[in-house]
Amino acid sequence: MRDPSRDLPSLAADVLARVRARAPRVHCITNAVAQNFTANMLLALGAIPSMTIAPEEVAEFAGRADALLINLGTLDAERRAAAEIASAVMGEAARPWVLDPVFVERSAPRTAFARALLAKRPHIVRLNRAEFEALSGAPLNDEALADFARRTGAAVGLTGEADHVTDGARRARIDNGSPLMAKVTAMGCAGTAVIAACHAVESDRWQATVAGLIVLGVAGELAGATAAGPGSFAVGILDAIHALDRDTLIAKARVAR
Amino acid sequence: MRDPSRDLPSLAADVLARVRARAPRVHCITNAVAQNFTANMLLALGAIPSMTIAPEEVAEFAGRADALLINLGTLDAERRAAAEIASAVMGEAARPWVLDPVFVERSAPRTAFARALLAKRPHIVRLNRAEFEALSGAPLNDEALADFARRTGAAVGLTGEADHVTDGARRARIDNGSPLMAKVTAMGCAGTAVIAACHAVESDRWQATVAGLIVLGVAGELAGATAAGPGSFAVGILDAIHALDRDTLIAKARVAR
Amino acid sequence: MRDPSRDLPSLAADVLARVRARAPRVHCITNAVAQNFTANMLLALGAIPSMTIAPEEVAEFAGRADALLINLGTLDAERRAAAEIASAVMGEAARPWVLDPVFVERSAPRTAFARALLAKRPHIVRLNRAEFEALSGAPLNDEALADFARRTGAAVGLTGEADHVTDGARRARIDNGSPLMAKVTAMGCAGTAVIAACHAVESDRWQATVAGLIVLGVAGELAGATAAGPGSFAVGILDAIHALDRDTLIAKARVAR
Repeated sequence: MRDPSRDLPSLAADVLARVRARAPRVHCITNAVAQNFTANMLLALGAIPSMTIAPEEVAEFAGRADALLINLGTLDAERRAAAEIASAVMGEAARPWVLDPVFVERSAPRTAFARALLAKRPHIVRLNRAEFEALSGAPLNDEALADFARRTGAAVGLTGEADHVTDGARRARIDNGSPLMAKVTAMGCAGTAVIAACHAVESDRWQATVAGLIVLGVAGELAGATAAGPGSFAVGILDAIHALDRDTLIAKARVAR
Repeated sequence: MRDPSRDLPSLAADVLARVRARAPRVHCITNAVAQNFTANMLLALGAIPSMTIAPEEVAEFAGRADALLINLGTLDAERRAAAEIASAVMGEAARPWVLDPVFVERSAPRTAFARALLAKRPHIVRLNRAEFEALSGAPLNDEALADFARRTGAAVGLTGEADHVTDGARRARIDNGSPLMAKVTAMGCAGTAVIAACHAVESDRWQATVAGLIVLGVAGELAGATAAGPGSFAVGILDAIHALDRDTLIAKARVAR
Repeated sequence: MRDPSRDLPSLAADVLARVRARAPRVHCITNAVAQNFTANMLLALGAIPSMTIAPEEVAEFAGRADALLINLGTLDAERRAAAEIASAVMGEAARPWVLDPVFVERSAPRTAFARALLAKRPHIVRLNRAEFEALSGAPLNDEALADFARRTGAAVGLTGEADHVTDGARRARIDNGSPLMAKVTAMGCAGTAVIAACHAVESDRWQATVAGLIVLGVAGELAGATAAGPGSFAVGILDAIHALDRDTLIAKARVAR
């Protein structure tokens, strides 16, 4: 008998099937650069995106969403207000929300705002090495990552050449993907939206993060195999995520604990 | 002799030819998710888009535009102000403007704002079933749609698996399109921009709406025939609308009264 | 021995190689329509984009950037504030910044704001004929262009069917490109970002502008040769700029003094 908590490729396939069957609503407070690609990634996956940031209505959108994504990519006053309102809505309802602290290392107001959001206990944080080091104040290593997860209560998805996921107790390493992923803007942002959609249908934070990163990485690998460059890669990963079937996902997933 | 008021595929081909010949300016107050795709759709069609929402200058842009699109997709304070200014400019000049009340069913401020805009008498309203029911307060059926058109004075384009267009007196049903249209964000928004461009060159509101939805639906069908998924479909529909010729449009149009 | 100040195709190839080797940071204050495509163009070229416009943090982003792009495409209050802060940062540090006065002919506040920015002495201005005439107040001809360059201290890149570059003393004319470039929104904006990235690695303003426009024009020509329309062209130019090699660039460049 398969135990999905141990067979991670099957887990990813199960979570993907659930996203497609349930079509969860994912509300995204994300930067202007990423909005279109993120919405298209969620649609290709089988989820239903909404993107409004107007403070007057973000509470109603978040209130009807199955998961929330907060991304700091372009941090203006209206988005900051929206992020505070929406994270409070999800916190009160104990519903999933995911933080993507983009460029948190680049400016002091951004670091301060990301830390304030972190104190509101997002379920999952997705970031890269530079962002992790700025946010945690520690150099990246396995122990620092696990400690950060325990301290914040979040599952942490650290993406880079390989992806690392931990909740402080469990660890996974995912080796899928394509070098072209770093050549398309908002790829990380859209990947965090995939994780949010997975968390809408999988309450285990660590499993949701692992599943989302496997799905994204395998789709990226398939797209990378035929792309002529970053333009056709950005198109191809949407086609690949939309067409991804269970057998291909399981056959291609390269994940270790 | 052909009567374009009855031969709707020919009407659509005539309107498309006029858009290409006259290159009308279409000013769009639209959501951040849709801006890029909408501008590209208008360019592919042969129109000239502008997208500014700054309240200080939107009156000048609207004043020089041949048609105006107002879309509520991401409703922030600046866009609300811009929508009020620009719709007033078009109203005073008796020039065409089209309303797309995106997600009007999702929040109370959005419903209220859409109703206030509706009272300013847009020439055309393009919406889906959920948006229609929220805005009109009535369940969707042919009579409710015709009544809404008569009450608002607008031609109404109701899009979905089939598209229905009425001005309260005339009706048309269009059966073109592709299931992939629902998998690309801002496809409806861009479609409303196509209708606005058609209304810039065809003063009959109902004919302009029918023509726009035929053009979009046929282009979608052509793109859907070769797309590998939603990514390549979004690219392909721009190519298809740019390349669409009269004979193909007339041959592929599936429209009934 | 080759003199790169005279052999302009080789100069363009040298500058492109430097961009790829150094991966300069280019901060972009640009319109919402152009942000995603501009970021993808910079990534495809080998540069590193950032796009925040929040007044609280734009000084820190500009302070760490190797070049700055200011584009007026959608001119809202926040972008105006960001443009003033960031241009001051670059001015004090004597670092490169490039102005793209999009649609400056369309509204009075836009003309006034563009002139105020021009007084802060951008290194390079990229514009089309209508924008030049509105900004300079003179009909376009070679002398007016050279005079504008001398008066503002900027290298001027005037784009259209052919591109003209002058710093008041030197002139170049570039005949690369594709008619489809006018059918993709934000192509000019993204082209100005390419020039900014070139200026980050080439301090001569005129040479940087010439190099950027050759790279963009050749990539456009390559993409245009296989595109099925404006949708696939927008994808193809990103692939082409990413794949562009020295020999192809030099063989295809059509540039004269």
